[in-house]
Parts: sequence; structure tokens; C-alpha cells
Amino acid sequence: MQFIYLDNNATTQIDPRVLSTMLPFLKENFANPSSTHYFGTTVLEAIISARTQVADLIGADNKEIIFTSNATEAINIALKGVAENYSEKGKHIITVSTEHKAVLDTCKNLETKGYEVTYLPVQKSGLIDLDELKKSLRSDTILVSVMYVNNETGVIQPIKEIASLAHEIGALFMTDATQATGKIPINVDDIGIDLLSLSGHKMYASKGIGALYIRKGINLSAYTHGGGHENGLRSGTLNVPSIVALGKACEVAEQEMKQDAERIISLRNELECELLKIPDTFVNGSTENRIYNVSNICFKGCDASVMIGRMRNVAVSNGSACTSAVIEPSHVLAAMGLSNDNAFTSLRFSLGKFNTEAEIKTAIKTISELTKMMLGYA
Amino acid sequence: MQFIYLDNNATTQIDPRVLSTMLPFLKENFANPSSTHYFGTTVLEAIISARTQVADLIGADNKEIIFTSNATEAINIALKGVAENYSEKGKHIITVSTEHKAVLDTCKNLETKGYEVTYLPVQKSGLIDLDELKKSLRSDTILVSVMYVNNETGVIQPIKEIASLAHEIGALFMTDATQATGKIPINVDDIGIDLLSLSGHKMYASKGIGALYIRKGINLSAYTHGGGHENGLRSGTLNVPSIVALGKACEVAEQEMKQDAERIISLRNELECELLKIPDTFVNGSTENRIYNVSNICFKGCDASVMIGRMRNVAVSNGSACTSAVIEPSHVLAAMGLSNDNAFTSLRFSLGKFNTEAEIKTAIKTISELTKMMLGYA
Ligand SMILES: Cc1ncc(COP(=O)(O)O)c(C=O)c1O
Ligand SMILES: Cc1ncc(COP(=O)(O)O)c(C=O)c1O
Repeated sequence: MQFIYLDNNATTQIDPRVLSTMLPFLKENFANPSSTHYFGTTVLEAIISARTQVADLIGADNKEIIFTSNATEAINIALKGVAENYSEKGKHIITVSTEHKAVLDTCKNLETKGYEVTYLPVQKSGLIDLDELKKSLRSDTILVSVMYVNNETGVIQPIKEIASLAHEIGALFMTDATQATGKIPINVDDIGIDLLSLSGHKMYASKGIGALYIRKGINLSAYTHGGGHENGLRSGTLNVPSIVALGKACEVAEQEMKQDAERIISLRNELECELLKIPDTFVNGSTENRIYNVSNICFKGCDASVMIGRMRNVAVSNGSACTSAVIEPSHVLAAMGLSNDNAFTSLRFSLGKFNTEAEIKTAIKTISELTKMMLGYA
Repeated sequence: MQFIYLDNNATTQIDPRVLSTMLPFLKENFANPSSTHYFGTTVLEAIISARTQVADLIGADNKEIIFTSNATEAINIALKGVAENYSEKGKHIITVSTEHKAVLDTCKNLETKGYEVTYLPVQKSGLIDLDELKKSLRSDTILVSVMYVNNETGVIQPIKEIASLAHEIGALFMTDATQATGKIPINVDDIGIDLLSLSGHKMYASKGIGALYIRKGINLSAYTHGGGHENGLRSGTLNVPSIVALGKACEVAEQEMKQDAERIISLRNELECELLKIPDTFVNGSTENRIYNVSNICFKGCDASVMIGRMRNVAVSNGSACTSAVIEPSHVLAAMGLSNDNAFTSLRFSLGKFNTEAEIKTAIKTISELTKMMLGYA
């Protein structure tokens, strides 16, 4: 059976070149980089190179990168670390209602600890209103955290403007760039990013690895205590093979991002254009301020979970989550004003660099037939 | 150059069978286990099996296991999670001065948050005095955390007795079993363990994975917030390949632990016996209550760091740590009453299942010659 994977925002396949780079560190180069003997030193050198590769991708210095186990951890380190360390300055944080749960749930946790969080609404487009942001900024705002690219809709927030508004009142600017790094060029200095999270498994590296960029001069409270690894913020033996993998993936992304983007955008557009021919369909969120690999489409009348379950050869996703037997609609689509009905009938297609023209054609056919059947036309 | 790795307590080489089990999940089985589509479901099944394999190794139920990125994280989740969740009952914690930094530094952090921590001293043997423990137990003691096997000396604490003393006053018992799991049989019920940490890379699985056993009925506060993975305690996409690796490593350990132990103990004894023929040498810590793969030997007059640096073919370690340009002696050896001089001239040999008789012979020769040279006999 042909396997058509259109769920690259959930996770990606490892690039074979990344896997080759990683394998020696799963085999002979297994030493602990903290070990002072010769074998440890060799491995430590690989860690330093990887740190530089990650830094280079976002225009940072390698001393500004710490490795984590995924983006969620990076986000927790950033938000909790700023909150704790800057609490004397203020206890107000601003974020957006369409952020990933890693940001939202961490903010909710901070609320139980005496912090106040403003969750900015979004417009139908998925974009925040910069005037709303301006009105929410206060002298005790210590952090503004706005994601770069939304994982469900692909909507790109105007983070340069957001960063500069945050800086005007002396707040830090954090962006969860999990769905942006490796896909679009990012320069932390040009944009004015103080903290940035990324994840290996979203960009053709392995699972089990993420990173946090922390601008020089910003001090965070330690998150995981122990041997003092990662500038004392995140202790524990480094996941060497996955770190090396992330480094390589960053290098590959830097070199090939542009050409990959061109191919992917044409596949995405073809897919979207054909699927929109199905009656009662529409795209969720801005199609102007949107990344090139995502299309979130509402298929009115077709339950998205049922569609996902019925397609054995096409992998796509919906944003709904099962929380203790109750199925909730995507909080992202809900925040954009979609009705529950429309949210439950929306599918996210997220393409990647390994997708082919033939796959897109098959996916179009599969989904068109499935919706016809489900709507009773077939 | 022959590579003789006697630093298995720092990290181990992946068992080739573990790597083979892991590889498909680095390649074709790359889906996210949280994805509801068919490809995600297959991966989820592998996670469930791995969870059972880990649980089986320690006589637990698979619902009592959560995956973490290493033992340090598991320890942080356990200690901070108990502290926060049981703070109404009390704020007193008991641990031991020879614990790993992951425990000690987490406890130090808890001290800054209003918790009181008793650090039990150890005897020359490295063992705690159970009477000292009895005296420290209080009605507001919520947790006793004592490591199973010490990473530097191999000393085994009487954790069954410790657990029962803790339970008498209604405190929970946590053990950092990072250096015990996979090496000696453990049954959490027989011993009375409430929380247990372990790490994949110490037991022939990959880096980037650890686990925490949490006895049914014990509730911890969430550590890393986000999508609600791992019973809501540790959110973030699961490191599938490494989880599968840990599961396989646990299965292999369960089957082969006994035969491996027999081989390793005879190699360790040969090494120790021969090295003790060097003048002015002695073993640090109990040789009775000690695990079979470790020997920590003091070579009076020979700086351990220099020895480590000079040996290009033998990897061993010392417990000293560089903290901002100051070199500190091992806190474990210091707590056992060793002078700085003796601590700085002590080496830890930690053997593993891949070590051979020939390697041990070469290591003995290398170290004997090196000490002779350093002591000016050669
Ligand atoms: C925008 C965004 N942020 C954070 C995360 C969390 O990433 P990870 O799974 O690496 O913790 C994801 C992935 O689900 C994401 O899409
Ligand atoms: C006894 C003990 N506890 C905890 C740890 C921390 O393990 P990890 O590196 O998996 O975080 C180690 C390893 O250094 C250890 O030996």
C-alpha cells in the first residue's frame, strides 16, 4: 500500500543524510561528552559543531543555544524561566489564544503561581490585531510570547512588529518557532527575537531533541537541576545522536530551504485548489500570511475524525483533542470564530519535502471520493 | 588503537539488538504516536509494548511508568512533583550526601522554595547509618530519597530497610536506581519503592531516554506543561525510537542480567586484585555492599585527572568536577571522609558487558606502567 504522509506538522521523516550523520553516535562514538577522557572529548567536539549549526540557521551565536528534548520543554524552560527570574520587574505575560498547548498550558500553570496572563484573541484570519496587543502592554509586562507559524493553519504572525512593540515597553519577546525553523529564513537579530523554541522532529531530524535560543544577556532560572549541563538550565546527559542529527538538519535546511519551498508550495497549491472544488469547502485562516506547506480545509458535512480513520493510505490530521472521553474542537479554529460543526469537519494537510506530485494526485482522488461517499453523492 | 572502555557508569554502548529494534523507528515508522491516523496507531502500539517491557523489569504495571529524557529529568519530576503535591502534609525531605547531583541540586532548589532537606552523612563504607535515618524522620517528612547503587563507588544502600522506615512514618520512598536497573534484579513491591528513576544510556539503550516509576495512587504535580503526554506530567512528543530502545534493553537485561553479572564480576575482581598490587592503593567504599561492575581505587601520589588525560586507550573516570575554573574533589568521596589528596588520586573503573578478558589485561598493564612512571619508579 502506498503511504501518503501529509502530516508533516505532526512530525517528519528523518532525512537520510541526517540519519547517516547520527548513526556513528549510536554506535562507536557513544561516549558521554561530559567525560574528560579522550573518547568523551571527541564527542564533545561534535556537540559544539551541532550547536553552531543550529545557531547559524537562525543567525545566533552558539553560546545562545541550549539543547532540550523537544520544543515543549524549550517553551517550559523559556516561559517559567523568564517568569521566575523577572518576577521582581512584573508578573504580567501576554500570549495568544491560538498558541500551541505547550505555551497555553505553561501559562495556565503560571497563573496558579501568581502570574497574570493576557490571552490575545485572533481575527477570523488567525492573525492578532496589533492594536489589541498595544492596549494590553503594561509596565509590569515582562514577556510577550507569540508563535511564528501556527501549527494548525500555517498562519504567520507579524512577529517583527510584535517584537518591537514588546521592546518599546521593555518586555522580552519569545516566539515558538517550532513550525517555522527550517522552513523559512529566520534571523533573530533582524526580527528582534529574545527567546525562540524549535524542535528536531518537525524539521527532518530525530525525535527527542529540541533547542531554545536565549539572547545573550538574558538570564533564566534553572529548569532541570543536576550536573549543570546547558549553562545550568537543563541538566542531564546530552542526547548526543539526536543533537548531531539536529545540527545536520539545520545545515541541510539552511542550504536547501529555498528550493524545497518552491516545490512544496506548488504541491500544496495543487492540492488545495483541487480539494476546494469539492462542494462546501473553504480554507481556514489567512491564505496571504501563511506558510507554504499547510492547508487547513473545512469539508462541511464530513466528520474529520471519521475521514482520518477511513483513510488507510493518507495521513492527515485534525486539531481536535480527546480529553477524558470528551472530544473538544480545535482551540485554534474555535479562537478564529469557527463553529464547532465547522471545526469538527476541518482537516489539516501539512506537506513536506519528501512528498511527490504522484502522492498529491492520489490524495486528491482519495479525499474527493471519500467526501462524495460521506456526503451521499457516490 | 584498541579502545578499552571502562567507563560504563558514565554511559554505555548500545546493544546491537537494541539498535536493530530502534532503527525502523528512525526510518519508516516515524509517525507521531499521538496522531490518530493509521500510521500513528502502529507507533503507539510500540510505545505501549516498551512501557510494559520497562515495567516488567522492575515488577511494576505499565501504567506506573512515564518516559522522560534521562534520569535527571525523572528525578526532578519525582522530587519536585512530590514536594509540590504533598506540601500540605509537610515540607521535610531526607536524602543522602552521596546522592547524584540530580538529587542534590534539586533538593537545593527545593530549599530555596521553603522546603527543608536533611542530607544524611555516610560512613567510611559509603553506607548510611540507619539509626541516623531514624533520628531524622519527622511527622512532616514527606519523602525519603536514597539512591540504590552509588555511581562512583558502586556501594549499595540498604534500601529495603530504608523504605520500611520511611513508610512507618507515612513518608514516600524514592530511589534513584540509575546504576542499579538492568544490573541487579529489582522488584518495587518487594522492596517497597514508591518512585524510581532509571536511564536508558546506562543500560545499553540509547541516550535521550529515561523513565520514572510512580506507584499507583501517588499523585505528582505536573512538571512540563503542554499536550498532556505521560499522564499530564511530562508533555512533549515522545522520543519513539529511544523509547523502543529502552524497552528492548529492559527485555534483554531481564533475560541476561544474571549471566552478564557472572562474567563482569570476575573481570572486575581480576582488575581490582591486580591494581591493588600497585603500592599505596586501596579501594574506596564498602567491598561487601557493592555492585559487581565498579571498582573505585585510590592511587596515592597519582593525580587522577593526569592519569585520565595520559591514557589514550583506556577510558575511566574520576568524580571531580570543574566548577568555574575551580576543581572540586568528588563530593561522594569527600562525604566518605577521604582527604582531598586521596580523592584527587582516585579512579573509578566501571565495567560493562562488552568488556573482555584481553581488555582487562591491557588495562592492568597500562595503568601499572603509568603509575610507575608517575611515581618515578620506572
Ligand atoms: C507550534 C508548535 N509548538 C510546539 C510544539 C511542541 O513540539 P514538541 O513535540 O517538539 O514538544 C509543536 C508540535 O506539536 C508545535 O507545532
Ligand atoms: C546515580 C545516577 N543518578 C542520576 C544520573 C543522571 O542520569 P542522566 O544522565 O540519565 O540524567 C546518573 C548519571 O550520571 C547517575 O549515575
